[in-house]
Amino acid sequence: MVRHSATLAIDETLRARRAAGQPLLHLAFGEAGLPVPDSVAAVLAAAAGRNGYGPVAGSPQARQAAAGWFTRRGLATEPERVVFAPGSKALLFALLAALPGDVVLPRPAWVSYAAQSALAGKRVIGVPVPPEAGGVPDPERLARVFAETRPGVLILTVPDNPTGTVARPDHLRAVCDLAERHGLAVIADEIYGELIHGGGPAPESPAALLPERTVVTTGLSKSLALGGWRIGFARLPAGPWGGRLLAELTGVASEVWSSLAAPMQAVATHVLADPPEVTAHIAAAARLHATVARAVHAEFTAAGALARRPEAGFYLYPDFEPLRPALAATGIDGAATLADALLERHGVGVLPGDAFGDDPRALRFRVATSLLYGDTEAERWAALRAADPLALPWLAGSLTRLRAALIALKSAPGGTR
Amino acid sequence: MVRHSATLAIDETLRARRAAGQPLLHLAFGEAGLPVPDSVAAVLAAAAGRNGYGPVAGSPQARQAAAGWFTRRGLATEPERVVFAPGSKALLFALLAALPGDVVLPRPAWVSYAAQSALAGKRVIGVPVPPEAGGVPDPERLARVFAETRPGVLILTVPDNPTGTVARPDHLRAVCDLAERHGLAVIADEIYGELIHGGGPAPESPAALLPERTVVTTGLSKSLALGGWRIGFARLPAGPWGGRLLAELTGVASEVWSSLAAPMQAVATHVLADPPEVTAHIAAAARLHATVARAVHAEFTAAGALARRPEAGFYLYPDFEPLRPALAATGIDGAATLADALLERHGVGVLPGDAFGDDPRALRFRVATSLLYGDTEAERWAALRAADPLALPWLAGSLTRLRAALIALKSAPGGTR
Repeated sequence: MVRHSATLAIDETLRARRAAGQPLLHLAFGEAGLPVPDSVAAVLAAAAGRNGYGPVAGSPQARQAAAGWFTRRGLATEPERVVFAPGSKALLFALLAALPGDVVLPRPAWVSYAAQSALAGKRVIGVPVPPEAGGVPDPERLARVFAETRPGVLILTVPDNPTGTVARPDHLRAVCDLAERHGLAVIADEIYGELIHGGGPAPESPAALLPERTVVTTGLSKSLALGGWRIGFARLPAGPWGGRLLAELTGVASEVWSSLAAPMQAVATHVLADPPEVTAHIAAAARLHATVARAVHAEFTAAGALARRPEAGFYLYPDFEPLRPALAATGIDGAATLADALLERHGVGVLPGDAFGDDPRALRFRVATSLLYGDTEAERWAALRAADPLALPWLAGSLTRLRAALIALKSAPGGTR
Repeated sequence: MVRHSATLAIDETLRARRAAGQPLLHLAFGEAGLPVPDSVAAVLAAAAGRNGYGPVAGSPQARQAAAGWFTRRGLATEPERVVFAPGSKALLFALLAALPGDVVLPRPAWVSYAAQSALAGKRVIGVPVPPEAGGVPDPERLARVFAETRPGVLILTVPDNPTGTVARPDHLRAVCDLAERHGLAVIADEIYGELIHGGGPAPESPAALLPERTVVTTGLSKSLALGGWRIGFARLPAGPWGGRLLAELTGVASEVWSSLAAPMQAVATHVLADPPEVTAHIAAAARLHATVARAVHAEFTAAGALARRPEAGFYLYPDFEPLRPALAATGIDGAATLADALLERHGVGVLPGDAFGDDPRALRFRVATSLLYGDTEAERWAALRAADPLALPWLAGSLTRLRAALIALKSAPGGTR
């Protein structure tokens, strides 16, 4: 049986509790937490007359816009190699259904890769990430995998969810070399690629390193906070292998979702042309994500957790191993009991590391910082526009609350509630 | 490999040919061919601010509206048993992935059931439909299936695509009895349920006949011609079996599409409350579908084809068996060569019966009549509002053209182009 996606499930649970009046810090869900720019809302409204199915892969206009978007980012792309879908999640599933062989995942990795692999009848081989950053398997450990098995697909997440970090170029290269040598297909999930902290360019794509065997998936859910609009797209490689995969992918697409909703394709056509107001909005979002993620990172490290410094997106992946003895005294002995204690004793919702394929005994969990920006549209706009968002009362209050919860967590059983 | 859905593929082919200047009658694609009502477009525009993912199954408001919609149609429904998705196609796939056992299909049946079953690793058992109407297997032939095999799922299409007919109540009852006796799950695809010709009520749902084991799927693609908006929903049965299936279905949904786009859920919330302008629009659409389908039916029967009289939706399923000797003289010996000749020699695009699982040697094909309403929004509105749509010059011209093509088909090799 396919269980309800852990990240969507905890979002529903936490929202229901908050609606019922429980005061909670919701750090468990990767929704980008920002409002829709007016110009983008206007495009959707203007596209309401578009009610035809259209081509499975997307309209010529949307595919052209996506090809230009990739090309401007250093990956020359033909429009005919772009496929749109209702979310990059649907594309990831369809790719796993179309590609042969078992799947290698970084460990930890986004919750859905493993579940989708199982749904597609594939075995998963998890390979730990390096200490420097997540999203790619440690190259040395990956090399050992091929002594034992013959996987077909390698998924990389650059920048990474759940660690909020960006794989080092030498690790990416080493991993792509291994994929080439062993004939793997690479799926590069680059949905956080526009949200590099400090506004730097995205790292080199695996599609530049292994051009003929890498599929890139991305979408507008994170950069423009349009998760609820379900706009995803994929770039398939040039060459015959990419051509065959394109046919398989659109075959699966035609039998699972038909096409991305036509008004949403009009939105993609607009946004992917990189109009200045969209670019400015995304840059402001990346600044806010960086500011808040760093502040939350500081709270966790001050509380004694290990955590890679956030480099992109809006996630942290703390590890409370240094506090194991103190936590053990309160009955916490792994990811599930730790996340449960944070929620039930201290009112802080996070997602335990085992949901990401990590060792359930480890004291690790994912923290999503993007639902701290506000509970109303007005608060979220204020956060996006603030010179010092951490001074906004609701954000400052949440950080204070988090600090108190973490102090209570390590000091005594019972806690703050 | 999953091939491109036959119906979506031929639509892309025919539209490309028409765009390149080829004059074609496009009778190959089941797009409802009508414009978006202003009130519905306004709801989409007003919902542009909704960018959160929301619950996998749909918002409480949308599920409540759908529950009311079903309840007013004679199927008492709890909101908690409704699941939304980007199209009922996605729901059908997810149901086939979640339900155990092989799949019994009427023969002919909509193109995607078999492809989705294959994608979900299921074997398909096709059982011919009765002479009276399609969408359900002939009960006597279905009974014989259980002597040989133990299928798990039965899909019924009421009203039917591809035959445009409505299963007889006694056949529906007999088939549901068999499903109950042999422990099958029934999936009732009722997406054409609002488009009964003559405005009559939909037939009794299999969900009324086998309440604890029937899932109903439907959507707004046909009734409101919103195929390109991808709004589908399912009603799961009350009781423990339905509860378990609901968990499985939302599990698959959470890993394949996350949720229906939030602005589209707002549209569903509005439409499924049955506001008077929406009800009137759908009634006008059903009248137009009936008028044009009957006129096209008359052309095919005048040309010597057998075809069930259309009763719902916008399809016919003619059989040129009476003309086999004449057609054989022009090299036509089955569904593929017949459809090919209609397109390549006579400029009439239809979908051959073998795409629907029918005998490839039979001279049967599906005719979709809904793309005749016009090539522009203005023409489609005029068709919808006309007291006598067949008198509109573009519709009259298409019927004349079809008549000439059918005369040419049976008279000589070479044809009309």
